[in-house]
Amino acid sequence: MSVTAARGFLASGISAGIKDSGAPDLALVVNRGPSCAAAGVFTANRVQAAPVRWSRRVLAGGQLAAVVLNSGGANACTGPAGERDAQAMAARTARALGVRAEEVAVCSTGLIGVPLPMDRVTAGIDTAAGALSAEGGEAAARAVKTTDSVHKTAQVTEQGWTVGGMAKGAGMLAPGLATMLVVLTTDAAADAALLDTALRAAVRTTFDRVDSDGCMSTNDTVLLLSSAASGLVPEAAAFTEAVHTVCLDLARQLVADAEGASKEIEIRVLGAAGEADAEEVGRAISRNNLLKCALHGEDPNWGRVLSAIGTTSARFDPDRLDVAINGVWVCRDGMAGEPREKADLTPRHLTLTVDLRTGEDSAVLWTNDLTADYVHENSAYSS
Amino acid sequence: MSVTAARGFLASGISAGIKDSGAPDLALVVNRGPSCAAAGVFTANRVQAAPVRWSRRVLAGGQLAAVVLNSGGANACTGPAGERDAQAMAARTARALGVRAEEVAVCSTGLIGVPLPMDRVTAGIDTAAGALSAEGGEAAARAVKTTDSVHKTAQVTEQGWTVGGMAKGAGMLAPGLATMLVVLTTDAAADAALLDTALRAAVRTTFDRVDSDGCMSTNDTVLLLSSAASGLVPEAAAFTEAVHTVCLDLARQLVADAEGASKEIEIRVLGAAGEADAEEVGRAISRNNLLKCALHGEDPNWGRVLSAIGTTSARFDPDRLDVAINGVWVCRDGMAGEPREKADLTPRHLTLTVDLRTGEDSAVLWTNDLTADYVHENSAYSS
Repeated sequence: MSVTAARGFLASGISAGIKDSGAPDLALVVNRGPSCAAAGVFTANRVQAAPVRWSRRVLAGGQLAAVVLNSGGANACTGPAGERDAQAMAARTARALGVRAEEVAVCSTGLIGVPLPMDRVTAGIDTAAGALSAEGGEAAARAVKTTDSVHKTAQVTEQGWTVGGMAKGAGMLAPGLATMLVVLTTDAAADAALLDTALRAAVRTTFDRVDSDGCMSTNDTVLLLSSAASGLVPEAAAFTEAVHTVCLDLARQLVADAEGASKEIEIRVLGAAGEADAEEVGRAISRNNLLKCALHGEDPNWGRVLSAIGTTSARFDPDRLDVAINGVWVCRDGMAGEPREKADLTPRHLTLTVDLRTGEDSAVLWTNDLTADYVHENSAYSS
Repeated sequence: MSVTAARGFLASGISAGIKDSGAPDLALVVNRGPSCAAAGVFTANRVQAAPVRWSRRVLAGGQLAAVVLNSGGANACTGPAGERDAQAMAARTARALGVRAEEVAVCSTGLIGVPLPMDRVTAGIDTAAGALSAEGGEAAARAVKTTDSVHKTAQVTEQGWTVGGMAKGAGMLAPGLATMLVVLTTDAAADAALLDTALRAAVRTTFDRVDSDGCMSTNDTVLLLSSAASGLVPEAAAFTEAVHTVCLDLARQLVADAEGASKEIEIRVLGAAGEADAEEVGRAISRNNLLKCALHGEDPNWGRVLSAIGTTSARFDPDRLDVAINGVWVCRDGMAGEPREKADLTPRHLTLTVDLRTGEDSAVLWTNDLTADYVHENSAYSS
């Protein structure tokens, strides 16, 4: 049920003709209230798309009545005209819904550097407004797909309230944030402050720890809207946990659907002298092309894990590093441990465990293998 | 002529049986003097192979009588036994040549985590010592190849003195240093201090700016040995320039032969407010898998260049970035410039120019495209 799993929300997804293929490419998510509290997290990339600049600005007030999203064009690196286009999308949506433009967030995804076909976009917004329904969550999730092979939705229902959401993203997946658009909704009566706290906490250990290809997008946006339609004020910890669960579910769906991937790799870094150390080590491993090729080839090449760890500033002793692949400790004390042949790398899901043996902290990251299909998908045409 | 282009040096390369294929895998470079001054630069990876630890230690005195090198095994992550093996290689070489073990550097390359077959290595050292000749430079260069498709040598002759050298490296090419072994020799009468100064200056803008796949090796070593056999004391600037020329020649050969590469990409970052900014931007671009796939597909996807620049901390205004591909300014002021169709990406050599328009500093880096062949070469077998 995606963004319409929670009460108080309408959504739609339609084909506006932005994509040449005729596939769905425009979505609306509308908050019918009574509350319009919202929070958002945006890409850390310093080159930011016009819709990111717009949405960041309108979200400063902690209120959103609607989100308009399009695939088929990122509206990034499009200059002053792109800024006007993002604003025009908000204005047209606001007019169709009877709200103010400053209550409408805008999200775009697709090729960088190409202007949007605004005549089609504005006509599409009107069509999408006419198609809004309380069952529109799935259609909205489909309309934001780019190279995604499947649409991604998740939801959690707690004592009387729900957190649901949708995500898109298949390439340019890297931290701060991954390349993606995510809209989460809830009918819990959470104010903007709680939404912000819960969202930041959840993103930090989910979307921010997905690193498919080390490439950071110009358009990443994660929004969380509350309608308060349940009338129930959630306990903060339970609400944060629910948001985390939905984010984690969506984040793992992103990794599972990463471009060309044949393996989903969970990197568990243990025994770190600080969470930052664990995260740095996990990130270095997740970005190591040579290792990701080896895992694609089902080769338990732990030497490439150690060479990746060695590039970090984390605290460790090279002669006390342990590495397990799918539970087999192929490296002990920085050298060969159990026979590498014992590690079975044939499953799609692989777990790589690193024990730094210097402390008690840990972090989990998710990545995938590097495949010829990834190269093909990102070289054969512009995306 | 490689390492034997300069007078006073002997070299050899033989098959010791370390590689199953029977290909050459052991090389010696011997300095006959009268001087034995030497300098070295080693990997910045904190996981360092036993031969790197050994060579770093013996080079502290600024003197080297010989270098023994093997391919077919990195002797990295091999624990205390690996340390003993590296020392045994130096000791055996020293005995065969009548020098002290503390005057012998050791370099190894190949798979990480596997012990060397020391019986074959020691027998091979004796064979190599018997094969030493003043024409042995090419044979030595061939014996250090791993996945290299060709051996790499370079030389420069100035007023009466020569700098020559050999390099190996085809994957795990990344800064600090690239994955490689390099031995340079000169018959100029340069003392250890000048050798060190010239080598560090040269490496900083050559090998340290090669970034093939963002992966940093455990075994990188660059050595420079002087025999002083010319009897000529070089002018420091001319000597530094000659070392730089040889390093640049070898560095570009490394990029040209990078695993699976179909494009050699020169990244020129101009208009930076500091060389460090220029280098950081160049490095971010050189590591962007999505861009490297696009260039492989001959797609002038400048949006991926901007998204890479945006991940750096360099000083720039996103709305004033210019990007040219092979001389066509496809991005001006952070948005589409000349028609992207005008950029011809069919040549093997591509030049990507970024003008940050914030200062006067610049840097040049070299990388290559990301190809299905790279994935195949690094997934089909251990290396």
